[in-house]
Amino acid sequence: MKVLLIGAAGTLGRSVHQALRERGHEVVTASRSDPALTVDITDPGSIRSMYDRAGAVDAVASTAGSVAWRPLDRLSHQDVMDSLVGKALSQVELVRQGSAHLADGGSFTLITGVLARDPVATGSMASLANGAVESFVRAAAIELPRRQRINAVSPTVFVESLADYGDLFAGFEPVPVRRAAGAYIRSIEGRQTGQVYMVG
Amino acid sequence: MKVLLIGAAGTLGRSVHQALRERGHEVVTASRSDPALTVDITDPGSIRSMYDRAGAVDAVASTAGSVAWRPLDRLSHQDVMDSLVGKALSQVELVRQGSAHLADGGSFTLITGVLARDPVATGSMASLANGAVESFVRAAAIELPRRQRINAVSPTVFVESLADYGDLFAGFEPVPVRRAAGAYIRSIEGRQTGQVYMVG
Repeated sequence: MKVLLIGAAGTLGRSVHQALRERGHEVVTASRSDPALTVDITDPGSIRSMYDRAGAVDAVASTAGSVAWRPLDRLSHQDVMDSLVGKALSQVELVRQGSAHLADGGSFTLITGVLARDPVATGSMASLANGAVESFVRAAAIELPRRQRINAVSPTVFVESLADYGDLFAGFEPVPVRRAAGAYIRSIEGRQTGQVYMVG
Repeated sequence: MKVLLIGAAGTLGRSVHQALRERGHEVVTASRSDPALTVDITDPGSIRSMYDRAGAVDAVASTAGSVAWRPLDRLSHQDVMDSLVGKALSQVELVRQGSAHLADGGSFTLITGVLARDPVATGSMASLANGAVESFVRAAAIELPRRQRINAVSPTVFVESLADYGDLFAGFEPVPVRRAAGAYIRSIEGRQTGQVYMVG
């Protein structure tokens, strides 16, 4: 399959990229820093340009999204807006525009995370955005045309990211990022839709 | 208790208002059309003015929020933005600003809805916003200061609203709006926090 992978430069994106190649898929990568296909998913015009350049695809996999990490009492209104735009509105836009470029039966796979269900301090904006995307995935699944499918991957913290998050996830059992990459393979090669694959 | 009720003019708001009065609470009402306390919850300045005029409160109850109802393939980028702002960003802002005006142990009660978990066609933006708010409530609960609490009420379609929604909720078992009002009482007078009260 020809898979458009957005957020390919990150820890998860690199692992999904490797898993896709191992499965024999053709991968078109896009990210904020990608030399071939640069995209800012918070900008609808940038998403349009990415899809135009990528051409028709069999799957769209997003490992991209950013939110504010800040104590609740120090969040600004702009932090909340930026978080909704950075991980929820942006990924909805990938679907809204992407459907026209996606093959019959093709899939969207979006990224959420454990904080949708289990919060940690300073993570309320991740919870907000993840919850939005998980419910959207369930809803979009019943409306997408041409047997197109959509799922979310909702991992806990990665072994490979523990150093970045310090004690935020104290006591959480981390998972190797390749397990989350496996959920992308399951979404892309499988037949399910409207699922939230919890990893960890 | 002194309860600030936002969205008091709607079907749910009127029922919550009545339930609060029956329980002997002092109710300060606010809505887009309220002659005493007009508020547009999508405008942070309007929320600020509302809280300033309302003074200190023991509970904040929101029955307000608006989203776009449209088939997935006819949603505009602006529809998605308006829906996130209209029901998610707006209610987060009620909490973000309201904490300073809320008594020790006081509560926020926000409105979500069944579409967070069970989608219907044309309802993807309600799902998106509801999912955001439900996950935010779980997260904010562990960070609010001074034993302040926060819960969401997530009702299915109301008997009283069936005519407005036509066949959208075909086969859903509607509940009388007073049952959702009861969940607000439970949130306000109870001790729980981080809960999503599913009604129906």
